[in-house]
Amino acid sequence: MTVYAAPLRELMFTLETIGQLEEISGFEAYEHASPEIVEQVLEEAGKLARDVIAPTNQVGDREGVSLENGVVTVPKAFEAAWKAYVEGGWPGVPFEAEFGGQSLPWTLTCAVQEIWTSANMAFGLIMLLNQGATEAINAHGTPEQKETYLHKMIAGEWTGTMNLTEPHAGSDLGDIKSRATPVGDGSWRVKGTKIFITFGEHELAENIIHLVLAKTPGAPEGSRGISCFIVPKYLVNADGTLGRRNDLRCVSLEHKIGIHASPTCVMAYGDNDDCIGYMIGQENRGLNAMFTMMNNARVSVGGQGLGLAERAYQQALAFAQERKQGRAIGAAAASPIIDHPDIRRMLMTMKSTVDAMRAMVCRNALALDLSKVAATPEERAAERAMADLLTPITKSWCTDRGVELTSLNIQVHGGMGFIEETGAAQHWRDSRIAPIYEGTNGIQAIDLVTRKVTLNGGDTVKGLLAQIRSLTPRLQSIGDEDFNVIARELGAATVALTEATQWVLENVGSRPNDVLANAATYLDMAGAVVGGWLLARQALVAHERLNEAGADQKFLKARIASARYFAEQRLPVAAALLGPVTRGNALLEDLPALLAS
Amino acid sequence: MTVYAAPLRELMFTLETIGQLEEISGFEAYEHASPEIVEQVLEEAGKLARDVIAPTNQVGDREGVSLENGVVTVPKAFEAAWKAYVEGGWPGVPFEAEFGGQSLPWTLTCAVQEIWTSANMAFGLIMLLNQGATEAINAHGTPEQKETYLHKMIAGEWTGTMNLTEPHAGSDLGDIKSRATPVGDGSWRVKGTKIFITFGEHELAENIIHLVLAKTPGAPEGSRGISCFIVPKYLVNADGTLGRRNDLRCVSLEHKIGIHASPTCVMAYGDNDDCIGYMIGQENRGLNAMFTMMNNARVSVGGQGLGLAERAYQQALAFAQERKQGRAIGAAAASPIIDHPDIRRMLMTMKSTVDAMRAMVCRNALALDLSKVAATPEERAAERAMADLLTPITKSWCTDRGVELTSLNIQVHGGMGFIEETGAAQHWRDSRIAPIYEGTNGIQAIDLVTRKVTLNGGDTVKGLLAQIRSLTPRLQSIGDEDFNVIARELGAATVALTEATQWVLENVGSRPNDVLANAATYLDMAGAVVGGWLLARQALVAHERLNEAGADQKFLKARIASARYFAEQRLPVAAALLGPVTRGNALLEDLPALLAS
Repeated sequence: MTVYAAPLRELMFTLETIGQLEEISGFEAYEHASPEIVEQVLEEAGKLARDVIAPTNQVGDREGVSLENGVVTVPKAFEAAWKAYVEGGWPGVPFEAEFGGQSLPWTLTCAVQEIWTSANMAFGLIMLLNQGATEAINAHGTPEQKETYLHKMIAGEWTGTMNLTEPHAGSDLGDIKSRATPVGDGSWRVKGTKIFITFGEHELAENIIHLVLAKTPGAPEGSRGISCFIVPKYLVNADGTLGRRNDLRCVSLEHKIGIHASPTCVMAYGDNDDCIGYMIGQENRGLNAMFTMMNNARVSVGGQGLGLAERAYQQALAFAQERKQGRAIGAAAASPIIDHPDIRRMLMTMKSTVDAMRAMVCRNALALDLSKVAATPEERAAERAMADLLTPITKSWCTDRGVELTSLNIQVHGGMGFIEETGAAQHWRDSRIAPIYEGTNGIQAIDLVTRKVTLNGGDTVKGLLAQIRSLTPRLQSIGDEDFNVIARELGAATVALTEATQWVLENVGSRPNDVLANAATYLDMAGAVVGGWLLARQALVAHERLNEAGADQKFLKARIASARYFAEQRLPVAAALLGPVTRGNALLEDLPALLAS
Repeated sequence: MTVYAAPLRELMFTLETIGQLEEISGFEAYEHASPEIVEQVLEEAGKLARDVIAPTNQVGDREGVSLENGVVTVPKAFEAAWKAYVEGGWPGVPFEAEFGGQSLPWTLTCAVQEIWTSANMAFGLIMLLNQGATEAINAHGTPEQKETYLHKMIAGEWTGTMNLTEPHAGSDLGDIKSRATPVGDGSWRVKGTKIFITFGEHELAENIIHLVLAKTPGAPEGSRGISCFIVPKYLVNADGTLGRRNDLRCVSLEHKIGIHASPTCVMAYGDNDDCIGYMIGQENRGLNAMFTMMNNARVSVGGQGLGLAERAYQQALAFAQERKQGRAIGAAAASPIIDHPDIRRMLMTMKSTVDAMRAMVCRNALALDLSKVAATPEERAAERAMADLLTPITKSWCTDRGVELTSLNIQVHGGMGFIEETGAAQHWRDSRIAPIYEGTNGIQAIDLVTRKVTLNGGDTVKGLLAQIRSLTPRLQSIGDEDFNVIARELGAATVALTEATQWVLENVGSRPNDVLANAATYLDMAGAVVGGWLLARQALVAHERLNEAGADQKFLKARIASARYFAEQRLPVAAALLGPVTRGNALLEDLPALLAS
């Protein structure tokens, strides 16, 4: 088992430099989120993660989950961890005080989620799904529904799930076969099978609140005929106590590459035609209810890439400092492998990329916060658009990097990395789901080029690019080699991204397949540029602080090195993607015919 | 379970266009390797793979291996598969007829190995290790040793293993603690513990011939004091029958991410001070004996990346043709996902890269063949140098691509890809060992810049670059868009690689750490350029053949598309690595201090 220590300095630095930590408690909604409180929250989360949750990670993976007589058993160690988590009030972090929440901003919520994921991604999933279901009910529920469910869910006494996918309907939910018919008393009978339901069944909480997509009689075809239902595992009596078991059950559990400790359930609703649900939101507008929470969830999933990469980086660094093998040039005896340049390359790739991922998640979360609380409607709209634009980038770029960096951790370990006992393997296996769920990264790329780049006629993305370009004079003004390199590489990559963006805007309407053919590559490019930009902003702050009394020199210099390394190593590749992005679809058009043998 | 069909057309095309298939049987040593025989061999291998070996892959992964009372049990299905493999004479493919081998060239051996890996990588490993041990004995054994062991090993009645690694000595073998002391009758007593021993124990063969590195009394320190020993599981009597069980045993099995069906053993030699071994080659020159086979083995491991990627590609293509989800632009009903541009991007990335990998393995194998059989000493030396130069590139680039492409297969499958039953996960898990064993890819990169680029004062690599550049006029002469693009992108990437190579040559002596800091990036760059070059050569042949009577139009056009796609999508990134390669070590020098918290 490897130890985990929450990167508190990095998290605070990111919240300060990217998350507007000083300003955020000035907004009434976040008045409790003073820098001191934020630091305390992170410290407490770090302690819980280190002492209670992280120790469940490897044993949880090994123990896995099981289903017997309809009862799903999760790893034994989760019981105490869940209890401690609930007692700490953690399920309520982002929610309103009215229902028992703590009204803390998404920037902090994401920081805390990073910590949970680093500690144990599978365990973190129960929180993430509960949060998503809570948000959906909060945004679309009737006052009665909110009163019935939110207190308990925010208290962690009940947990929530999201039921979208069916065997034949994943990325495209238009064809779901689940049906809901009115009972007559305002409730509905739900019938259907859902797959890939995370924590769809377990005994950690006394009730499970399923949000289930289904079609009502006579609903329009496709995605405009989908409604959303609250379907509790135990029906809730008028006095809030639990009534009878609802007609729903976990039919089987998936055997997955990773997140072994998270039960991924096949759920059957209404086998006996007696599964009661309650519509949430308007009829046929169920996808809207889902998308409310899905945007936040996508940022959170990007944060899972970050959390696993951070954990992997900590493990790789510790191993590289300890393991001796070979002699570095000039060494008289066996060197710790961190003294070998290729190991340093891998560690620095991990560190600089993790820094960029954390900054990206934080900037995206800030946009979610400001879209709600900023002073003027114009600012709120602008931040809403920024959140929309950044979300597919954060989700995909950070999850792809999660797989890349957890793989580098294995490589740093050499042969030991391939052995499960080391723990490096688990992070890599766990990371592989994140580019898939909550909308595959391919879906994110489609979303980016067809709906996000085009927002406000392209003004949102152009505004972002202008912001990035405007950093160049400040970077150049420092006048040392580090910042000259950052200015040059970021400048070149931004020019390329600007050109690629213009091409996307010009062609996505008239030649959509040409744009879609390399939408994923465009997203890669955008991710690297946004990451490099945020690191550059942070490096500027680090440079300013170097001269402050008591400044943490090593930490600040490492941040400048991180920005430069990212600029030197990743941004030239991003710039070079301009060609690949704009090649179009011609070569792919004949593909099915050519490859059909 | 997914089906596997050996890509016979692709294999033959590669052997014809890269492997000098028409010429090779003109050499006396390979006189049996006529194109007709080669095709028959591939067909037979394909049948065995499809009908017998591939069906053991997923069940083997699930069943795994176990150790009880010193006996290692491999998946039940391996027994019949091994029997069929041995009866087909497959262990003897590359070996001399004198010992029962078939004297076929390495180009064909590699093609056959690709087929075994695609069918079942774990199963393929027993063959690969046996082959390595056979080669070492063939190259360094005394006539008696050859007589005693080779017939049986080449017949597959006995199998071989390689015992190098110890817990504290992996990449650097200089400090191994295993010891050998002379018995007095010419034999030695071997004592020590070895780890990561593939198929170190099993019951498939009646004897196992371990090659074990150990130090003799008074041996020099470091890697110049290592000797190599033949240590049979059962001692061999003078008449060739099996004698007593030697004092060696499998102590435990590793629990790994992948290749679950391949037992990775911790081996204890001489627990009772009665483990008999026989020195092979000269005292203190044991690493030489190992490196003889290791160069070939490294090409074979590159071929494992290829084999898994091919299997993953077949699976992704089949799934994409079958699975319907969403509507492609203009479609009236749900489309097979191959109609979505992003899925096509992934498939074409897989296909074009697999084509490049196969060509690279073949060119490298050809160099191994010609280094032995070419007409003049100059030609043989030149091909030896070419083999040496290409080997670390083939090993690393193809194994890194193996991980990348098996991951793309998961992505094509979406949520189903994360589920073990689908089989996509296994290819990805299995692929992860290949960048680690047989010299980590980091070690390969060091080898490339310090020993291979500098071969013959740099003339070997310069000669290769000149060959690549000389293709441009031929590409341009075709005059169509496909070849113009290939010429342009290959030209630009080759210019960049030439400059990077010059930088490596100029600095590796005086500032080695600067070169080592991005040696892996240089290797990536070189791999892409070599891959793009070989694809371009093949595209030229495909273009010529298009006008032949009965030409397979679809196949040939797909090959041209493959070359162009690779050139358009991968080569611009390779060219952009010139900057990152030449940035040096300055930023990494302070790293250990900066990151130590």
